[in-house]
Amino acid sequence: MAVYTQVADDELEAFLCAYDIGTLASYKGIAEGVENSNYFLQTDQDSFILTLYEKRVDLADLPFFLALMDHLAAVGIACPTPIHGKDGEALRTLAGRPAAIISFLQGISPRRVDVRHCAPLGEALADMHLATDDFTMTRTNTLSLPDWRLLFDHCSPRAHEVENGLANEIERELEFLEENWLGEEALPRGVIHADLFPDNVFFLGDDISGLIDFYFACSDFLAYDLAICINAWCFEKDGSFNVTKARHMLNSYRKVRPFSQEELEAIPILLRGSALRFLLTRMHDWLHHPQGALVIPHDPLEYYRKLRFHQGTKRPGELGLV
Amino acid sequence: MAVYTQVADDELEAFLCAYDIGTLASYKGIAEGVENSNYFLQTDQDSFILTLYEKRVDLADLPFFLALMDHLAAVGIACPTPIHGKDGEALRTLAGRPAAIISFLQGISPRRVDVRHCAPLGEALADMHLATDDFTMTRTNTLSLPDWRLLFDHCSPRAHEVENGLANEIERELEFLEENWLGEEALPRGVIHADLFPDNVFFLGDDISGLIDFYFACSDFLAYDLAICINAWCFEKDGSFNVTKARHMLNSYRKVRPFSQEELEAIPILLRGSALRFLLTRMHDWLHHPQGALVIPHDPLEYYRKLRFHQGTKRPGELGLV
Repeated sequence: MAVYTQVADDELEAFLCAYDIGTLASYKGIAEGVENSNYFLQTDQDSFILTLYEKRVDLADLPFFLALMDHLAAVGIACPTPIHGKDGEALRTLAGRPAAIISFLQGISPRRVDVRHCAPLGEALADMHLATDDFTMTRTNTLSLPDWRLLFDHCSPRAHEVENGLANEIERELEFLEENWLGEEALPRGVIHADLFPDNVFFLGDDISGLIDFYFACSDFLAYDLAICINAWCFEKDGSFNVTKARHMLNSYRKVRPFSQEELEAIPILLRGSALRFLLTRMHDWLHHPQGALVIPHDPLEYYRKLRFHQGTKRPGELGLV
Repeated sequence: MAVYTQVADDELEAFLCAYDIGTLASYKGIAEGVENSNYFLQTDQDSFILTLYEKRVDLADLPFFLALMDHLAAVGIACPTPIHGKDGEALRTLAGRPAAIISFLQGISPRRVDVRHCAPLGEALADMHLATDDFTMTRTNTLSLPDWRLLFDHCSPRAHEVENGLANEIERELEFLEENWLGEEALPRGVIHADLFPDNVFFLGDDISGLIDFYFACSDFLAYDLAICINAWCFEKDGSFNVTKARHMLNSYRKVRPFSQEELEAIPILLRGSALRFLLTRMHDWLHHPQGALVIPHDPLEYYRKLRFHQGTKRPGELGLV
């Protein structure tokens, strides 16, 4: 949780002159959020989120992310909408950083996932996938198989600091995935969220009120997005896999967007890949986060345990998914 | 900046059942704030601040702080109002910590103090002092002269880590203050805010929209509160003292509450005491903040430089205050 870039009141007031959203009444740094600095903003007209993009976000990717949110919001997906300035631009500079104002969404991220969250999530994910069908921009997934190898090479000399023998285990998994990962055309592709963890999904009561944080969105297998969600939502705190949650998610997903037999068969390997992706990025952050950093890194071993679980699965039926 | 205690959505929803303020629509941790954890809360009725009191706040003091805010709000001082539950209580427990919901105030804390802020501040401070005149509760200042000695004893073995020779300088200053500090009845007393830094004052345009964070409030010399403000608001970033700001603050203060000659004469020593108080608490936090803490401690040397400045002053006229 962090606000990395401090914004002075006078520079924020000057910044707001580029927009037609009223005069500043309040702003507060938001503690949640790891990648970027976010402020909750109130004007005399409405509430907004101000995001300052920090170093981990590539400036060249921002037009893709903002256009994607524009596109999704325009077709009725509940997600933040970039606010365009009087000049039409949504992206500008504040306090030396790229910055955008987006609409504020009500809703609450579940801190504890319940089975009742999983069907709405599957449906919302499928809605989003259908809605990106006619979105023409693309963005390469910069955290896919070749990048896992690079991340691993960077981390492996210190992997034992996370757990003894971890480097060997990951090496074996990487070799397996390099041999068995799916070819580009093997499954339907599209724009995926790629980071739809519970803290990026807002609920009001039992309904989803919005999906947020599209800053990992990219072009990839649609089924890979579902695998990321299954890993993020369907394991209990004690490491056990909750079949009921996964079934709810899958079944509600395919009520909206048909899920082919090929996609279903691919779920076990997609789950392994997704588990390795988050194990590697968490391990990287764990080993490289600066002393005194404002963010407590996520536990990489959570995803190591998920990976180990999936290594024992060959067919979706073994996960209760049919 | 930090949220120390995480609150799960289901426990917050259960907590809100004790109140008559609507159903939860959104909550976000606020990055600003050092002592306690604060959340910005929206229900379908209104916006609020949820505060979880962390270890540095003495539970026994909370009824004083909350009653003070109740009292001030009731007589028209713009400050947060504690929200009382259906049972009449404002203080209860959440996530294992004492917790209260207070009203949300609009306004913006000046990141850069301008001379135009200082007259409204003096007036608001005097308003607050007059308003506490008929407040019957008292609270001993636990950061006054005897406590400075205790803090110093705790820090002096490591004071050289902050600056070479600092322990000797503070020892001399403490001896001076122990000899020259004012007797209990020397000046008018009352309830003071005791921490009215710019981040605790909200402005809308040129007007103050609220004073916040009463968690250091205590019974002490009213003029000591003004001295704390002069130190916090009237020095420039380069360490120079801005007489114009201090004059604006004092003159607008005494338009509301008469300031006696004794109080004026005492300003130089009150400024020294106030500078030492913040030097010592900042030094304590600087030396003792845990590795990986979420809060970047304030620079103690800022207040050492202010103390050095005041050591050269005997009479208020030398500061341009007459």
